[in-house]
Amino acid sequence: MRVLGVDPGLTRCGLGVVDVARDRRATLVGVGVVGTSAQEPLDARLLLIARSIDEWLDRYEPEVVAVERVFSQLNVSTVMGVAQASGIVIAAAARRGIPVALHTPSEVKAAVTGSGRADKAAVTRMVTKILRLETSPRPADAADALALALAHAWRGAAPGSPSAVGRTTAMTANALTPAQRLWAEAESRARRKT
Amino acid sequence: MRVLGVDPGLTRCGLGVVDVARDRRATLVGVGVVGTSAQEPLDARLLLIARSIDEWLDRYEPEVVAVERVFSQLNVSTVMGVAQASGIVIAAAARRGIPVALHTPSEVKAAVTGSGRADKAAVTRMVTKILRLETSPRPADAADALALALAHAWRGAAPGSPSAVGRTTAMTANALTPAQRLWAEAESRARRKT
Repeated sequence: MRVLGVDPGLTRCGLGVVDVARDRRATLVGVGVVGTSAQEPLDARLLLIARSIDEWLDRYEPEVVAVERVFSQLNVSTVMGVAQASGIVIAAAARRGIPVALHTPSEVKAAVTGSGRADKAAVTRMVTKILRLETSPRPADAADALALALAHAWRGAAPGSPSAVGRTTAMTANALTPAQRLWAEAESRARRKT
Repeated sequence: MRVLGVDPGLTRCGLGVVDVARDRRATLVGVGVVGTSAQEPLDARLLLIARSIDEWLDRYEPEVVAVERVFSQLNVSTVMGVAQASGIVIAAAARRGIPVALHTPSEVKAAVTGSGRADKAAVTRMVTKILRLETSPRPADAADALALALAHAWRGAAPGSPSAVGRTTAMTANALTPAQRLWAEAESRARRKT
């Protein structure tokens, strides 16, 4: 399953594409950030985001687009730009007939790190491990977009499985790599549930 | 000058097109509302709004799109849908190279009724008079979209003129129709300023 994750934003819009196999193994396909300057007029900024999303959808042809569900905790001026960008992203996917899934930040954090209250550094660290990357995706928006894509793919791949597929607190040294350990844990849980 | 005014919203998105002559006389060209149901998924709703905006831009070829600047006074769940719709509208105009102007609700109210704190009924009443309509545009979102377009056109047509072009409180009976009285007042003010 190929998923495009989008962490919407006006100043920085994170984009990440992953391929996730039936066995939950995930591979990085593409990652990036569309940045727009607050010096530019709003219409130029939103157009740049619209064009970038179209490019990513054309280039990577994802089966699903996972978008962060925007939240009220943010301050209002930030929410506005985030919501405007997310509207454009969702409409762009819908225009191509690509399903859109919305996930809350805490769902994504829980899926990737095991804790819904994980900080950005923990999310980045886990995304880096899960995708077996040599360097961490930067900025955090790019890592968040990948986390969204992973969270969605895992939910989709194993319906009914726990949304938390691993716990950072359980990441003690053992024979498995952290990512392998995650899969093992997730799979053993999924088996226990069924 | 042809202006498309948009009162963005997820449940109801008001659209109004007016032609405004050099002498500030305004004519209704088109008015409508795109309604989407809360029962539909968000992506289907935003797609409907995106397609409608594209249709209106293609059909009426406005020179400017005037969009209501979204505000923090609204509750957060409303703001989200409004902002998502406005993002789509702004990007659609920008994609066609059509300039976008943002106006606050109080700017629009002041331009159309003379008071920045006018209620929806007063705005509808003035829009009906200004455009010489036999019946008021309904729902209020449609009237708001027309008010936005008028407010923008008047600002653009006479730079430096007061943003309040008439006062409902001054609408006492006399030989002029209310709309004619408005023009007369606005023009006499514009002359006084220059």
